[in-house]
Amino acid sequence: MSVRWVVGVDIGGTNCVVAAVPFQGGMPAAVRALPTRPQRGPDAAVADIAAMAEEVIGEATGSEGGSRSDVLGVGIGCPGPLDLETGVIGATPNLGWEGYPIRDRIAEALGLPASLDNDANCATYGEWWQGAGRGTGSLVGVTLGTGIGGGFVEGGRILRGASGSACEIGHMTIALEGRRCGCGNDGCLEAYASGPAIAARAREGLREGHASILPELVDDLETLTAATVYEALTLGDAFAQDVMTETARLLAVGLANLVNLFNPEMIVVVGGVTRAGEHLFEPLRSEVRRRAFRSAVNACAIVPGALPDTAGVIGAAGVFVMERRR
Amino acid sequence: MSVRWVVGVDIGGTNCVVAAVPFQGGMPAAVRALPTRPQRGPDAAVADIAAMAEEVIGEATGSEGGSRSDVLGVGIGCPGPLDLETGVIGATPNLGWEGYPIRDRIAEALGLPASLDNDANCATYGEWWQGAGRGTGSLVGVTLGTGIGGGFVEGGRILRGASGSACEIGHMTIALEGRRCGCGNDGCLEAYASGPAIAARAREGLREGHASILPELVDDLETLTAATVYEALTLGDAFAQDVMTETARLLAVGLANLVNLFNPEMIVVVGGVTRAGEHLFEPLRSEVRRRAFRSAVNACAIVPGALPDTAGVIGAAGVFVMERRR
Repeated sequence: MSVRWVVGVDIGGTNCVVAAVPFQGGMPAAVRALPTRPQRGPDAAVADIAAMAEEVIGEATGSEGGSRSDVLGVGIGCPGPLDLETGVIGATPNLGWEGYPIRDRIAEALGLPASLDNDANCATYGEWWQGAGRGTGSLVGVTLGTGIGGGFVEGGRILRGASGSACEIGHMTIALEGRRCGCGNDGCLEAYASGPAIAARAREGLREGHASILPELVDDLETLTAATVYEALTLGDAFAQDVMTETARLLAVGLANLVNLFNPEMIVVVGGVTRAGEHLFEPLRSEVRRRAFRSAVNACAIVPGALPDTAGVIGAAGVFVMERRR
Repeated sequence: MSVRWVVGVDIGGTNCVVAAVPFQGGMPAAVRALPTRPQRGPDAAVADIAAMAEEVIGEATGSEGGSRSDVLGVGIGCPGPLDLETGVIGATPNLGWEGYPIRDRIAEALGLPASLDNDANCATYGEWWQGAGRGTGSLVGVTLGTGIGGGFVEGGRILRGASGSACEIGHMTIALEGRRCGCGNDGCLEAYASGPAIAARAREGLREGHASILPELVDDLETLTAATVYEALTLGDAFAQDVMTETARLLAVGLANLVNLFNPEMIVVVGGVTRAGEHLFEPLRSEVRRRAFRSAVNACAIVPGALPDTAGVIGAAGVFVMERRR
């Protein structure tokens, strides 16, 4: 019997990634990516996605007697909020496609059944299905970038919640009297440990006069990003390590809460921040250990993702497989 | 066919409650309670529990041609930490029975198969199975008393976690620079919204000179408890309402986090604090609404438990039924 395939689609504010993923699990046979350019509107992006999908399908099924009938469907990951019942996009700032029926438009364009879930759930599911979390009974994924999101997989199933918005990890209050967040809450984790928060912490320290290689890595302090801090870490910069240690201390508050609430076998952290490696993970594990319940900490591995560029697209395909096995 | 029964056992630091609960669900046919007196040691308590169990079995099966063979097993709820694999009690301050194989001792005493789960999971499961949460797809229970605990039921199953310690809600950090908790963490919800925290807040306000009926309700401010505050509320005391509004504001931080993380259909609050009624729930719902994601708040009812005295014992029996249906 020939291999069966699922097309994974990972729609981001910057790029759209499309891949042919084996239904039984495994690495993608073919991957394509194009800039999303969301301001063009969703129809143009769907046309690009459909064209990339036909390419990866052709590449994946082109050998060993495969055919298009070996493609069982398409799994789509997209920034939320989403209406998972209807497959319609909500008020998503990065895209601006509110009200667009993304699931059905892609399904129609490809003539394939489609699933839809948010990007953080897909990245989490990808790491559980084919990445760092393979074989775990329960796993929390934490996606750390411009924002902080997450997902929870238990028994092979993603926790979606009553309105499809479970695991909004970034909007957990960790500071009672913390600053107001755009979401309306105060003291959200996202304000303390996201990529922009890391960059802001670094800029603040530099303005206070801390010695560092960081100013040499950027033209202007305003263009300094979290990625600049990761670069300085690899160059042995002590101030960059201080910034990362403080970030780890704050992120650990959120992760300790996740350990005490979900008691998972693993927390997998995905996103650019994993480039900080043990500069992040060593102080992170140490502080989570101090804060969370001993038995729960002992049961929980805290690790970086194993699929830095493809967790989202693999997980999007994985969610389609999960729904088929419901 | 005659009715089948499960014996529920709810072991607390103060009392042990035993009930005969219909396997198919429903209210207990018979309930007994005795003081635990944990300092006697666990064997004496188990002897009391076994005697009460035989009484409720006799009462439940004594009519309509029932017999002891209609009793399928016993479900036990007990303060944690517990080893759910082995059925052994951990370092539980309220009992002091560390290392005692409570599940198997009760099973042997009654000659029945037994299940074990912690008291907060049992109370949550009881409210889902037969109480306020009947018919909900997902529910978070929050038990508010001397400590704060909780549980999460989804699809009729309790989330236990990798080491049996999921939903340690009271030890969620809500205040980054908050005071050190006995658990080793800082700024735990329990320190801000438990029964003792309510009493401490009231005493502090009274010492600052706030006018209130509270001093008239106790011989000595040191004997003032959360229950005194609930009593003052029913008498229309304005200061007691201020204490409860502040408690609601702090509890709401934790509940908003639960809404954003679990996105449940319902949060059911159980324990003596529910005696404060709308004095608590009105400001609580209002503050959760401000803090948590709109779609998740709209999907989530926040209600008091419907089984004030029996959620734990009914839920203990319910967990036995749940395990039978695995």
